[in-house]
Amino acid sequence: MSHDPDSLVRTFISSLCSLELESALGMVTSDCEYDNVPLGKIHGPEGIRSALSGYLGTAEEIDWVITAQVSTGTLDDGLVLNERDDRVRIDGTWRSLPVCGVFVVTGGRISLWRDYFDRGTLAKVMAREAT
Amino acid sequence: MSHDPDSLVRTFISSLCSLELESALGMVTSDCEYDNVPLGKIHGPEGIRSALSGYLGTAEEIDWVITAQVSTGTLDDGLVLNERDDRVRIDGTWRSLPVCGVFVVTGGRISLWRDYFDRGTLAKVMAREAT
Repeated sequence: MSHDPDSLVRTFISSLCSLELESALGMVTSDCEYDNVPLGKIHGPEGIRSALSGYLGTAEEIDWVITAQVSTGTLDDGLVLNERDDRVRIDGTWRSLPVCGVFVVTGGRISLWRDYFDRGTLAKVMAREAT
Repeated sequence: MSHDPDSLVRTFISSLCSLELESALGMVTSDCEYDNVPLGKIHGPEGIRSALSGYLGTAEEIDWVITAQVSTGTLDDGLVLNERDDRVRIDGTWRSLPVCGVFVVTGGRISLWRDYFDRGTLAKVMAREAT
């Protein structure tokens, strides 16, 4: 159980890294907006599951490292911004996607998850041939 | 005079929008790292001046809107993350670059400024023909 927006987002990221997708999806609101800024938005737990399925299906392992995180407010009405190194292992090699994330917390769950990154870097990270 | 990291970063962004570049450069440390994540890093006030010269030379007007900002620490040792809509007017039309910024504040000045955005979106924003 998270007691503040900061720990809720840390637990959410940690659940994704452990591939505990159901647990992670239980931490978002039913109408949660998931916005991968250069790619587009989807909504709700099923939209998030669908959006992440290609990424998680290609990855042998993921390790998203929060390098900085600042938050304000409460679990009822909170805001969290973080800087991450979204590491993913594909074809035996770890690759890095630098990301900044914005999370709005409403009524104890994440109601907005917006990630900023470079689309070209993501394409290189996900390419099947190891570079 | 800024009294906390939050207001220092707001004043810095506001100075850039007013094209008061000398005033803005006075708010960064002599070895400040300016990292445009998908493009690369430069250092120091002269590096920042050089990095911004093309952008500011092409722009008729700039209006970087801070849509969310969270900070922690003090002016001596602080951290600020913000989400911005970096608007720029070129050929009479306003274009938008969605950005997340990370700012480290050390000894009353900005010692790290790291911006996350999509390189392809920046290229479209800066294209001379209005879209």
